[in-house]
Order: sequence, then C-alpha cells, then structure tokens
Amino acid sequence: MNNFRLHNPTRIHFGKGQIEALTNEVPADAKILMTYGGGSIKKNGVYDQVLRALKGRNVLEFSGIEPNPTYETLMKAVEQVKTHKIDFLLAVGGGSVLDGTKFIAAAALWEGSDPWTILTGDAPVKKALPFGAVLTLPATGSEMNSGAVITKKATGDKLAFGSLVTFPLFSVLDPTTTFSLPPRQIGNGVVDAFVHIMEQYLTYPAQAAVQDRFSEGLLLTLIEEGPKTLANPNDYDSRANMMWAATMALNGLIGAGVPQDWTTHMIGHELTALYGLDHAQTLAIVLPSVMHILRKQKGAKIIQYGSRVWGINSGSESERIDQAIAKTRHFFESMQVPTTLKAYKIDSSAIPKILEGLKRHEMTAMGETGAVTLEVSAKILEACL
Amino acid sequence: MNNFRLHNPTRIHFGKGQIEALTNEVPADAKILMTYGGGSIKKNGVYDQVLRALKGRNVLEFSGIEPNPTYETLMKAVEQVKTHKIDFLLAVGGGSVLDGTKFIAAAALWEGSDPWTILTGDAPVKKALPFGAVLTLPATGSEMNSGAVITKKATGDKLAFGSLVTFPLFSVLDPTTTFSLPPRQIGNGVVDAFVHIMEQYLTYPAQAAVQDRFSEGLLLTLIEEGPKTLANPNDYDSRANMMWAATMALNGLIGAGVPQDWTTHMIGHELTALYGLDHAQTLAIVLPSVMHILRKQKGAKIIQYGSRVWGINSGSESERIDQAIAKTRHFFESMQVPTTLKAYKIDSSAIPKILEGLKRHEMTAMGETGAVTLEVSAKILEACL
Repeated sequence: MNNFRLHNPTRIHFGKGQIEALTNEVPADAKILMTYGGGSIKKNGVYDQVLRALKGRNVLEFSGIEPNPTYETLMKAVEQVKTHKIDFLLAVGGGSVLDGTKFIAAAALWEGSDPWTILTGDAPVKKALPFGAVLTLPATGSEMNSGAVITKKATGDKLAFGSLVTFPLFSVLDPTTTFSLPPRQIGNGVVDAFVHIMEQYLTYPAQAAVQDRFSEGLLLTLIEEGPKTLANPNDYDSRANMMWAATMALNGLIGAGVPQDWTTHMIGHELTALYGLDHAQTLAIVLPSVMHILRKQKGAKIIQYGSRVWGINSGSESERIDQAIAKTRHFFESMQVPTTLKAYKIDSSAIPKILEGLKRHEMTAMGETGAVTLEVSAKILEACL
Repeated sequence: MNNFRLHNPTRIHFGKGQIEALTNEVPADAKILMTYGGGSIKKNGVYDQVLRALKGRNVLEFSGIEPNPTYETLMKAVEQVKTHKIDFLLAVGGGSVLDGTKFIAAAALWEGSDPWTILTGDAPVKKALPFGAVLTLPATGSEMNSGAVITKKATGDKLAFGSLVTFPLFSVLDPTTTFSLPPRQIGNGVVDAFVHIMEQYLTYPAQAAVQDRFSEGLLLTLIEEGPKTLANPNDYDSRANMMWAATMALNGLIGAGVPQDWTTHMIGHELTALYGLDHAQTLAIVLPSVMHILRKQKGAKIIQYGSRVWGINSGSESERIDQAIAKTRHFFESMQVPTTLKAYKIDSSAIPKILEGLKRHEMTAMGETGAVTLEVSAKILEACL
C-alpha cells in the first residue's frame, strides 16, 4: 500500500426528508446564492422544499448552470456574488451544478488576474466561499469531494481543479429527489460512478486489500442496483444504494494509498468538448477499449475484477480478460448507454481531432504508469469505433 | 436503508515515516501533554520519533495508562493538565491510550461536579481539549472515531462515552510501529476489529448494499491478512491492510444507516470488569454464542455472511448457520484467542455475577431489536461455558 493522507470534512445528511437539515446547516445570517440548473428542481418539489427550509433567510438565485458547466456561465454567477456581497452558496442539483458552484466559490475570492488559471493550475486555490449542496442526481461524487470539471466554451477546453477549501461543508442526499430522473440520467449516473471506481481500481496490484474490497463492493452494488432503479424508479432502497455508492465511488476513500489511472476520463473529456456527448457516454465508449488495449499492463487487476465482480473463474488469462471486458460493455449497454463511437454517429475522422486535444492539454503520458502516449491513445480510439 | 448523518473530521496520515507529520499537525505554540501506556513505545523507537518530530516544543508526559484504562489513573492526568495549563494532548499508543486521552480531554474542561458523569451519560460532553494520536496497535478504531470506554476500578464499572468534540484532530498510522507487537496483541486486534464489524453487520437485512459489501470486504481482509501478520510480523503490506481495516471497522462508515447490535460488547465488558480478561478475549467467547442463541433473529444475515465471507453455499439454513458459527469460532482460535469461558478457567458460577452487572448497567434489552433480556443473556452465557 502507498502512503496517503485522507481528510474528508463534508457532513452528510442522508435519507428521506433530510432537506430540512438546511435550516440548521446554513448560517442564519448568511447572504445566500442558491445555484441550480435548468429548472427540473421546480417540477419535482425540491425547489419548494429548499425554500421552506430556508424560510425567512436572505436567498438569491442563479439558475441555468448547464451540463458540463461552462466558465462563461459561471462567471456571470461570480459577478452576481460580488454585486450582492453573497457569503454562502447553496448548490441544488447534480454534479454539474455542484462542480460549477465549487468554481464560483473559488473564483469569487480569486485574487489572480484571470480566474481561468484556476483550471489551468497555474496557482493553487487557497480561499473559497463556504458552500453546501442538495444532491438530486447520483453520479459524479462531487457532493463529498473537492474536485470540479469546468468547460470553456470559447476554446472547447474541459479541465479539472480541486483544493482543500472546495469540499462542501455539508451535502443533503435524499434518494426521493432522484425518483423523477429520466432513464438517460439514471443510466449515465450508474456508468459514471462505475468508471470512477475503475479509474482507481483497475491499475496494477498494490497490496491494498481494503481499497480493493471496497471498490469491488461498490461495483457489485451498481451492478445489482442499477438495473433495479431503471426498472422501478420509485424503489427507495435501490435509489438509496445507488446514491450512496456513487458518493463513495469518488470521495477519496477507495483511491487512498493506491495508483490511479484516469485515462478514460481524459479521453472522454475531449469527446464531450468536441461532440457534446454526455460525460457518461464518453466513459462507456472509452473504458472497454482502455481495458482491451492495456490488457497486459492491467491484466492482473482485470482478472481479479472478473473473478470477484463477475464470477469469471475459468479459461485462460486472455479469455478471462476478454470475458471481463465483454461483461463490462454489456452492463453499460444494459444501462442504455451505448459503448461505441459509431452508435453516436462519430467515425474515424474524429480520432486526429481528439488526439490534437489531448496533445494541447498535455495528456501525452497518461495512466497509472504514464504509458498512455498519444500513440496508445490512438489505438484506444481505434478500438472505440 | 435508514436515514443517517455522517461526519468524520479526523485527518489520517497513513504509512511509513508519517510520524514526521506531527511537526505540522501539532500547533507550534501548544503546551502538549504526551500520553502513553507502559513504555513499549520507548523500546520500539516510536517515543524517539515523536520527540524528534516535536523538537523544540513544550512537551510534558503522562505514562502508565493501562489496558482497559481506569478513571482513577486518568484523573491523575487531568490534574496534571490543570496544573500545567496543558492545551493539547497527544496520545501515543493503542486503543486504551486513545480512549483514555479522549476522557482526559473531556474531563479537563468538564464543568459538572463529578467527571464520572461523563460515563454515566447524565450530561452531554460539549467541550474537550484538542488532541491527536499516533496509533501503535490496530484494533479499536479509536483513532478515527469519537468514542471511548473507561473502567472505574473502585466499582468495576466499564462504560462508554462519545461526543462530537472527541474526534482526534489527526491520527498517524504507521504500520511499521506495529512490527514489534507480541502475538497476543496481534490476535486480539484482529478479533476486536472483526467483532466491531459484526456488531454493525450481523443484525437483520436493512437493504443497505454498500454497508453490507464494505463490512464483508473488511471481514475478508481480516481473515486473509490476520494469519499473515501472525506468521510474518514484518510483512509491511499485511500490517498496513490490518491497520486500515481496523480503522474502517469502527469509524462510523459501515454503521451509517443500518441497525446495530453491541450485545457481545456489553456482555464482554462485564467479563473484563469482573475477571480481567482482555477485551478481545471476551468478544471471542461471546460472539459465537450470540450467533447461536439469536440464530432465528439473525438468520438471514448469518446466511449472507456465511455465503459471501466463507463461501458456504450449500446445506439447509440451519446447517449453513452452524457452519458460519463454526468458521467464526475457528478463525478466532486460529488467531490464538480461545473462545470458551472454560479456556480462561471461568465456570458457571460467573453467570449470575455477569447478569448482576448487566442489570446494574441497565443492559436488559440489548441488541438490534432490544430482544436480549437478562434471560437471553443467561442463555448466551451458558452457551459460552
């Protein structure tokens, strides 16, 4: 096991009716900016529950944070924060709203010249407005971590940042808020959480028994509960298990003390930036090909994954790896997320453009060993067609 | 899944050489009381490493915190804290030193008349001195939770307390500090962590998929790594996995959103108070009998445990339960912790005394459903002979 530091200060309020917890969690005298997306929270009752919990408080609103939240939109919120001297942010939505709110929190107190440098990583984020979250879409894990991914519309750059000061102070996770999600978002959420786990798990053996067992337990949970949430949207326990699994998939716990990959995400970000695919769609396309092309480097862990998660215990090593990849692909497809570029009407002419993006973002030695050069990325993309 | 709140603010520094982290973690101007036990830290180099990391700081010492730390001893430390105006505690040792230090932290700022009321629970603990820990014995989980168990020598009472202000600010977990542990403490640590998991897992099905999978993963880790640490004391990865599993076993994570039992611990505390048995020895005696006597109430979870942890997938329900109990007992014995009262030369004359203690401590409706009356406890104890 590698050395690690672990600290996760976010307070979790999990379960039915927990939006009430906002009354005590949000400081009574705060000047609050409530951030949200396209307005689905007004249809499913979450908006009303939040305002009820904050009755009598000073609440302004910023809506319109889009999926793959953009710098351009978020800077408008930063303006509003400054104009109205906002001192507390409350994100109500899914990962995009949460990620966007983390950026607003950091950019509002940013003292450098250009807040985009928060994303390019030229200077560390040392201050941010305090913020909390009400999660309505389990997928990204943003509710219990300090990371965010932001897109610059003008250039098509999609980059990540994180800092010790951008953990939510608290997050409310009420599974009933997810009952009204459309199937596409449910499927995407399951795939997103699944691939988060794989990025931290499917590398090389690192003698980290707890982290491996936890990762496998989360994968098994998604495999068992994902189809149930699609088939039966109002099944509380499946929703709750799905929601909690997605949080645990990316809150630092399973990634502590182990090597990590993130190749699939980096290639996926380019696909979203260029073609507007949903984040999870890009992951469903890329992961099976990453497993296939890196089958030697990742062989031992793919075989362990096949055995412990899918019960694949016979056949040659190569056959087991093939079976594990096939099971993974089939699972994504069963969650209604197609796994080839062709299914999204993207052909081989995309490959040079994606490689160009990777090069521009200095993604030329990716993965747990740095072995994923542009040449290897090209092979991965060819296998995605 | 039940509703829950989860918040664990402890910062973990895990790995070789991490005692160095004290230099930054302990406030530079603090007046520090370093608390420890019988002095084994002077033999294994931990004491020296700690003082090196705190070179130039204001450090006093309080040694002699015993296994099953006593109120009487700890109150002497409280006096020292008050006399020397100590404002930071640093616990260096195992669960007893950590638990004792939590009590010192709370008692030093206690405003009620008698600090023993912290244990009887008559008034909540709202203030405590800040403290950190260097863990040298993986077992109790005290390094990442807010609970402590303290014994009053005068009366033989062994009681627990916990509060939001008694989480360690940080804990250093360096697996190499555990290389020199004697086999008895290794075995005890594995059994202690194992039973912590079972108290939170082996109740009734609560549709908490992640918590179940995490619990099973920790049990599997202990089963695989425990014997390796006994056989090969200097195996770093086994020590590391054992240490991290014991922390995860009782830091609030696997117990969030599920029913909990704790019958085994409550009966075990009486056994230690009356006969001086090691804490883990009492757990190894009591748990198999709790499983046997409560086999109906716990049947579904015992069968799940048997299948997922021990691979018991055939036979009648009753046979599977018997096999799961036998496997558990055998595992404890393989860790060199005997599992009957007889092995510790305790006979049936102990039973009325233990029941008297349970009655005095109002442990008359224990377990996840409150069904463990004194009558049921008597049956459990008879099965322990």
